[in-house]
Amino acid sequence: MTIFAIIGHLAATTGNFNLNDMPGGAGRMDVLCRSVNSSLFLSHDLRRDVTVYLVLLGGTDAPKTILFSGEKVRSLNPDERSAGALIKKALEIPVGEEFRESTRGVYVRRGGLFRLLQEHTFAVLDEGGEEITTGTSFPEAFLLSDHLDFTPEELGMTGNCPKYCVGPKILHADHTITVLLNVLDRRSVQ
Amino acid sequence: MTIFAIIGHLAATTGNFNLNDMPGGAGRMDVLCRSVNSSLFLSHDLRRDVTVYLVLLGGTDAPKTILFSGEKVRSLNPDERSAGALIKKALEIPVGEEFRESTRGVYVRRGGLFRLLQEHTFAVLDEGGEEITTGTSFPEAFLLSDHLDFTPEELGMTGNCPKYCVGPKILHADHTITVLLNVLDRRSVQ
Repeated sequence: MTIFAIIGHLAATTGNFNLNDMPGGAGRMDVLCRSVNSSLFLSHDLRRDVTVYLVLLGGTDAPKTILFSGEKVRSLNPDERSAGALIKKALEIPVGEEFRESTRGVYVRRGGLFRLLQEHTFAVLDEGGEEITTGTSFPEAFLLSDHLDFTPEELGMTGNCPKYCVGPKILHADHTITVLLNVLDRRSVQ
Repeated sequence: MTIFAIIGHLAATTGNFNLNDMPGGAGRMDVLCRSVNSSLFLSHDLRRDVTVYLVLLGGTDAPKTILFSGEKVRSLNPDERSAGALIKKALEIPVGEEFRESTRGVYVRRGGLFRLLQEHTFAVLDEGGEEITTGTSFPEAFLLSDHLDFTPEELGMTGNCPKYCVGPKILHADHTITVLLNVLDRRSVQ
């Protein structure tokens, strides 16, 4: 099992956003949609052993966390609007402290990073980290930020997590996930 | 300079497609939009040394080729709709045999793969190829297919090109580009 959590610092937490304006009105929800894609899609297949958390921190109903289960998700296509539509549905249902399924394999609850850090052992993917290819063992979960840097509060919460980068250039979150999964894919067959 | 060419076997060649239905009515144009993204975007920057060709083979006005210049493009954002809107504009202008600029850094002409193969030295990125990390030198240009396999005619035209894969799992075209660029990034600093 590999887990990704991506923080959407401005991402909408109510379902009234427009799928035609995910970069603007939905608070760069496009970044999170692409991260779902890169976490879960293989060519003509899904990565059934990957789980994705989206930590949504924008708007008046924040924080909320959406979970995409690679094992259970259906009706997900690779385009941004497809993931966006499932996120929108998740944000439209009444939600409490525990995960509730909104569509097959997609779940939503209140709460954010603090709770996730209690539930999984994370590494942080960030440009200042150790080169991933030199790492010998990794925790099950990887934390990334969207287009914005981690906040001082987030850095404080993750201060004890190992930190990795995925090469000499600074990449978007979704590209970082793609490279990381490729590193894990190669190791799995060695 | 690194060059990518992605073949869109069903991709629209007229600009009357709907940006809200790129996977359907535009012939999986979403695949090509994501390939533009993964070819050109770094975090808060563009890969100015990358050029992308989209070979569009769908519809009645095929074939057409669109060029995105990483050096010259403006008004390109990472979301699929942004690349889609620039492709749509390119397909709306009258076009001949030579590249014509439709928006800053985006160009369109008639013609397809045959002509590109005369202009650049290509490697093919495909699951049957040699593992890319074992390659010692690469041509300047890399050819990929969209969600469909290369046709027998395309395989015939590229029979003499070296072939590479990017790991043990079969990836989408845009993910393949991300991994390949990461391999080149790592080599560039060695």
